[in-house]
Amino acid sequence: MKLRHLIGIEELSPEAILTVLDTARSFREILDRPIKKVPALRGVTICNAFFEPSTRTRVSFELAEKRLSADVVNFSASGSSVSKGETLRDTIQNIEAMKVDVVVMRHGASGAAAYLARNISARVVNAGDGQHEHPTQALLDLYTIREKLGRIAGLKVAIVGDVLHSRVARSNIWGLTKLGAEVRLVAPRTLLPAEVERMGAQLFTDLAAGVRDVDVIYVLRIQLERQSGGFVPSLREYATSFGLNRERARLAAPKALIMHPGPMNRGVEIQTDIADGPQSVILEQVANGVAVRMAVLYLVSGGAPPEPAGMEPVLAAHPAGR
Amino acid sequence: MKLRHLIGIEELSPEAILTVLDTARSFREILDRPIKKVPALRGVTICNAFFEPSTRTRVSFELAEKRLSADVVNFSASGSSVSKGETLRDTIQNIEAMKVDVVVMRHGASGAAAYLARNISARVVNAGDGQHEHPTQALLDLYTIREKLGRIAGLKVAIVGDVLHSRVARSNIWGLTKLGAEVRLVAPRTLLPAEVERMGAQLFTDLAAGVRDVDVIYVLRIQLERQSGGFVPSLREYATSFGLNRERARLAAPKALIMHPGPMNRGVEIQTDIADGPQSVILEQVANGVAVRMAVLYLVSGGAPPEPAGMEPVLAAHPAGR
Amino acid sequence: MKLRHLIGIEELSPEAILTVLDTARSFREILDRPIKKVPALRGVTICNAFFEPSTRTRVSFELAEKRLSADVVNFSASGSSVSKGETLRDTIQNIEAMKVDVVVMRHGASGAAAYLARNISARVVNAGDGQHEHPTQALLDLYTIREKLGRIAGLKVAIVGDVLHSRVARSNIWGLTKLGAEVRLVAPRTLLPAEVERMGAQLFTDLAAGVRDVDVIYVLRIQLERQSGGFVPSLREYATSFGLNRERARLAAPKALIMHPGPMNRGVEIQTDIADGPQSVILEQVANGVAVRMAVLYLVSGGAPPEPAGMEPVLAAHPAGR
Repeated sequence: MKLRHLIGIEELSPEAILTVLDTARSFREILDRPIKKVPALRGVTICNAFFEPSTRTRVSFELAEKRLSADVVNFSASGSSVSKGETLRDTIQNIEAMKVDVVVMRHGASGAAAYLARNISARVVNAGDGQHEHPTQALLDLYTIREKLGRIAGLKVAIVGDVLHSRVARSNIWGLTKLGAEVRLVAPRTLLPAEVERMGAQLFTDLAAGVRDVDVIYVLRIQLERQSGGFVPSLREYATSFGLNRERARLAAPKALIMHPGPMNRGVEIQTDIADGPQSVILEQVANGVAVRMAVLYLVSGGAPPEPAGMEPVLAAHPAGR
Repeated sequence: MKLRHLIGIEELSPEAILTVLDTARSFREILDRPIKKVPALRGVTICNAFFEPSTRTRVSFELAEKRLSADVVNFSASGSSVSKGETLRDTIQNIEAMKVDVVVMRHGASGAAAYLARNISARVVNAGDGQHEHPTQALLDLYTIREKLGRIAGLKVAIVGDVLHSRVARSNIWGLTKLGAEVRLVAPRTLLPAEVERMGAQLFTDLAAGVRDVDVIYVLRIQLERQSGGFVPSLREYATSFGLNRERARLAAPKALIMHPGPMNRGVEIQTDIADGPQSVILEQVANGVAVRMAVLYLVSGGAPPEPAGMEPVLAAHPAGR
Repeated sequence: MKLRHLIGIEELSPEAILTVLDTARSFREILDRPIKKVPALRGVTICNAFFEPSTRTRVSFELAEKRLSADVVNFSASGSSVSKGETLRDTIQNIEAMKVDVVVMRHGASGAAAYLARNISARVVNAGDGQHEHPTQALLDLYTIREKLGRIAGLKVAIVGDVLHSRVARSNIWGLTKLGAEVRLVAPRTLLPAEVERMGAQLFTDLAAGVRDVDVIYVLRIQLERQSGGFVPSLREYATSFGLNRERARLAAPKALIMHPGPMNRGVEIQTDIADGPQSVILEQVANGVAVRMAVLYLVSGGAPPEPAGMEPVLAAHPAGR
């Protein structure tokens, strides 16, 4: 499999997704060692271009990059030439001209990563573009589910919350359905866009019905900063109707996983006892995120996926002739 | 001595303090070499988590980390998930999950570093928490005094200024008294908290009396941004009563050291001729700060302190089995 | 040639300029290789001190530094002790005390870099100081012209736009005239300072006359944020009179180069078809910028320029005894 860019899960074949997950497993083992650094991307330059604020995702990528021994340059929108009125195209061409090998970009506009990939010879990894996709988040979620439950196919997964605004939901719907899971979207009607039904998901406006017997409850972050638009009557009302608590979680399958992409609004979309309870894999998602991002960066840089017998892809230098 | 975290000077034994100072001396010599980098922490990942703005301390830590060959990831409060309403506990658990080895944290809440240390398996270094402690500042101050005057025990040290709000003062009071110095606190009554008397310091509300015959005058920064609370009638009046000038410095012992943690408000708490005069060791404090922080990071990462005969601790790789 | 600091082009001899350009050529070749990193500045610490926001220049310097294997510490004005009222001199002395080898500084005050160089033992590279100079920009411009046209001497170069506020213009006037080019400055009378005539340039207030038969049209950025001062009646009027379009570019020599320091205001000082046309070398300027900055950092750190026979200066370790 050749992974030139990672723009969205929509474009990936099931085989490509599985290749990323298998490669991530090799890196995940390395993260439990005392020395977590491998020389896989030595001499490769990666630019983290974050046009929207993000700590969590940026730090996860930066750790992945440094553990691969890449050289890292960060830039964020504040204080950038973007604020001087430069077009995205010019910013991109400038990054290109500086001979960066990989660009990891977060941007507020849906389609920004695809636009970047069309206009640059560097490899592009989408770290979230508008309300379109957040593919590394979905890959780390898929990785976590597969590691914990042994498979994806045939599972029932309920994604609960602000589906309308969520690139995380969108990427996960693509990934889960491609790998054969049954996806349910659970939200107030105002937060359920019509188009997601065409993506193969079932819609539920009642939480109890939506989570019944599922193997995974995936709670989305309610984006407080976006709720002034009136999509939700009040946070209290949202928590009452759609917040996940212990009683509601009990409706799912006995050992159902509880997931959340973070950062959590405790007491709003999820209660603390559930977030920190034995079924929660929220912190494992974070840990797996670094490994999955290492795998993605390694593969888009031309690295070979692991062989079935379980070799060590990361000890090989990256192909220089890229 | 095992130094698992560095939260405050209060918890350290005199022996532990001296171990840090001795280790720092080895690193200080390295800083005068053309190549200042040692492989001591190769493969170790350090996260600088600054929830309060700071350049000086952050740059000092970052230089220390890079000279130890550690991998460094920075994050600051602005643009972080903190501003999205995440709890400190969740932020911490996320850092933990990303498998960071050491967290250097500055935070506006007293007790934040201790809280972090209780909730994370990574090693924690407090880079300043609220009005509680700033232990690496005190260690570099102790280092500087000991290098210049040959000892700490038996010295008279006057700490002048806004003791009430100062974590620097608090850490230094602990460190100086533990090592046998006599500490005087010199400030307007409104800036002298009652509790410091219990820490073993003498209180003075008259500058001339307070600095008479002391071996060290340690001038605190007047925190301009905090003075709207009305603790000081006016900056001019503060400078008149408590600003250090040449005449007042002359009341101290003949070669008394003049110290300041920076950044200085020249003309307020200290006059320029004193700040730049022959008794000032203010810039040596800064230089020693990098060495002291290298020592702290090295020790909390499991490095061995130097042996009496004067070996080179920094040339040994760090213990991988941590 | 010994290059201790790089403050401005004004102080450089023609030979010094050519040495930088020759050294840059060696680095430029390396940037086209798959592995772009050389060990030339291993163990050297560089501080990027940006007191004015800049992404483009800061990223270019940071890439140059990392490709030379230097250790890099960034600090910017926001969140720095500068905002706590510290003087530039104190900030500088602190950087000095931390034993940094090279300081790359951008500052809003003309003369700031020279002041820094006088007060610090580290090497200083000016990344733009007020309206004074931006020497690495001029060096990359000279490099680009020489590579494309084979020489500088005898060329006619028109610099079009806001000369009054432009440190880029000032550095280029010095560089071009020192290397024997004929410089024309083309702008509304209000944007043409009297002093530039003494620098050996000809003044034109008519664009058509100014660009006629020139070998290079160098379009300056109109600094939108500065135009509230009333120097230009309106952007539309500016574009009408001084914006470069295809018709006007045709007045220059047949294969005249079109240059711009970026970021561009498309549709104001330059039309898109010209910016992206076959004569534009704007993106080559960006690519060359990294190589030129590598050369400058290498030379100020004590590296030897390439020998006529074309050796590999960058493979030699930097002189430790600096």
